[in-house]
Amino acid sequence: MKNIDLPLYKNIIEVSVRNYEVDWQGIVHNANYLHYYEVGRMNYFNSIGASIDINSINSHTKILLVRNEINYINSAKLFDELIVHTRISKIGNSSFVMQGVIIKKATNELISDNSAFHVWVDFESNKPIRVPENYRQLVRNYEPNLDEAK
Amino acid sequence: MKNIDLPLYKNIIEVSVRNYEVDWQGIVHNANYLHYYEVGRMNYFNSIGASIDINSINSHTKILLVRNEINYINSAKLFDELIVHTRISKIGNSSFVMQGVIIKKATNELISDNSAFHVWVDFESNKPIRVPENYRQLVRNYEPNLDEAK
Amino acid sequence: MKNIDLPLYKNIIEVSVRNYEVDWQGIVHNANYLHYYEVGRMNYFNSIGASIDINSINSHTKILLVRNEINYINSAKLFDELIVHTRISKIGNSSFVMQGVIIKKATNELISDNSAFHVWVDFESNKPIRVPENYRQLVRNYEPNLDEAK
Amino acid sequence: MKNIDLPLYKNIIEVSVRNYEVDWQGIVHNANYLHYYEVGRMNYFNSIGASIDINSINSHTKILLVRNEINYINSAKLFDELIVHTRISKIGNSSFVMQGVIIKKATNELISDNSAFHVWVDFESNKPIRVPENYRQLVRNYEPNLDEAK
Repeated sequence: MKNIDLPLYKNIIEVSVRNYEVDWQGIVHNANYLHYYEVGRMNYFNSIGASIDINSINSHTKILLVRNEINYINSAKLFDELIVHTRISKIGNSSFVMQGVIIKKATNELISDNSAFHVWVDFESNKPIRVPENYRQLVRNYEPNLDEAK
Repeated sequence: MKNIDLPLYKNIIEVSVRNYEVDWQGIVHNANYLHYYEVGRMNYFNSIGASIDINSINSHTKILLVRNEINYINSAKLFDELIVHTRISKIGNSSFVMQGVIIKKATNELISDNSAFHVWVDFESNKPIRVPENYRQLVRNYEPNLDEAK
Repeated sequence: MKNIDLPLYKNIIEVSVRNYEVDWQGIVHNANYLHYYEVGRMNYFNSIGASIDINSINSHTKILLVRNEINYINSAKLFDELIVHTRISKIGNSSFVMQGVIIKKATNELISDNSAFHVWVDFESNKPIRVPENYRQLVRNYEPNLDEAK
Repeated sequence: MKNIDLPLYKNIIEVSVRNYEVDWQGIVHNANYLHYYEVGRMNYFNSIGASIDINSINSHTKILLVRNEINYINSAKLFDELIVHTRISKIGNSSFVMQGVIIKKATNELISDNSAFHVWVDFESNKPIRVPENYRQLVRNYEPNLDEAK
């Protein structure tokens, strides 16, 4: 159906569908996929050595999530094991795009995909700033196919 | 910033940001906006007389949410009163698009907007079916500016 | 069934059961009652003039929730209107007890009750401190039947 | 502090604190512990061969959660690895008690404990029924120290 190039996604984690994530239709509620993708992104940042948590945010800059696109292709159900694939596909001047793909482990079915658009901003003014060079370098090292605006 | 035509949104509800919806950055977590938009959509369906709940889904058809697009424009914070605006902008053959806009009541700031793409399908086969005529009529009655594929 | 003296609960709010709060059994998931009770407690604090939020916590003291007891008596379902009753029943030296009762509006059925045990502590050391006098006075003014350890 | 006999808990799982589970105070929100304990209980049921999910509930009986007691002893923070210990401590005529203990992996700190009281009931009438013999036997096989009312 969709043209998703899984080999480009080097960062992979597994999550199991939990009881409270399933709605009265017996499928994972649509908002919970944003949780799974975020777990993937957090793991991604840790993996490349750019951990972004409550302690590492400094007083000068921060990252804002400005847009999410989620496609729901097949439903996930209780106790399904899901594989969350995460990559950074693109870095612009102040923005970058993280993409996620969720596959059902047992069947290799495509469950969902996500594009999450982020912007680096000044901590106080919320004005966009250039993505810092050390962060760019960490991503470049990890993503051989990175689309980067120089 | 965005060209959002609020007068087109006739369906309006208010939600207050709850304590558990705010993350460690002091702002509403990005997945919770999908909750707010869903509260808006449920209210919309009830308002037009097409309530869609655990009792009204019949054994022949159901509605699938297939795609969400969310823009995060300004942050909402604890105790903020938010106004959720909901409309159906378009009905295709088997699909329809619901749009949501969240405004901060105190300041009229645009917080977020959403497009949620739905498809009517056969309950068992998940194959798309034509949007039922009685449902189309309820939406037509409510939405003078509906973009409808006949 | 239970001996709950509703007239003692002066603080009342309404919440509607939301779609994402209902699990695959068609009833509100057990953890979501803690959300409802917290919404009640936040409203309580605001009502008595002791608002406790991200801005009002000072650098010297904070309040810890140390124990929750929840009874689930009848199930709540999608779109049920619930009335959350909240009171402070007791203030000890460093602790206080908030009680909540949830009633289904349409039928007056008792849905659930809660006791939430809190302790005032030093912000850094987490050692219990005496409940501050200004806070005690606000509660005394609001709760004629308060059980207070002097 | 508390007298918790960890060797009695044979069922153990690990969960990592996720970003969206942390509130604006930087600690896991109190309601999320009920999610962790439930993940533990689901794993417990699967482990003893008594899986309780959307497919296995039959049309004659069901299990109701009627009471939760949770103690919050130490706070868990973002990315903490938690070990959830689960056991059934007691089976009465129609009721049984599941207990949970959460330990922080890195430090062995006690984070929280839980007692969750359940009742087997008739599916339609909600009247208590005797805990079925096959279920009792599965638990007896797993719990050498079970307190069982014969």
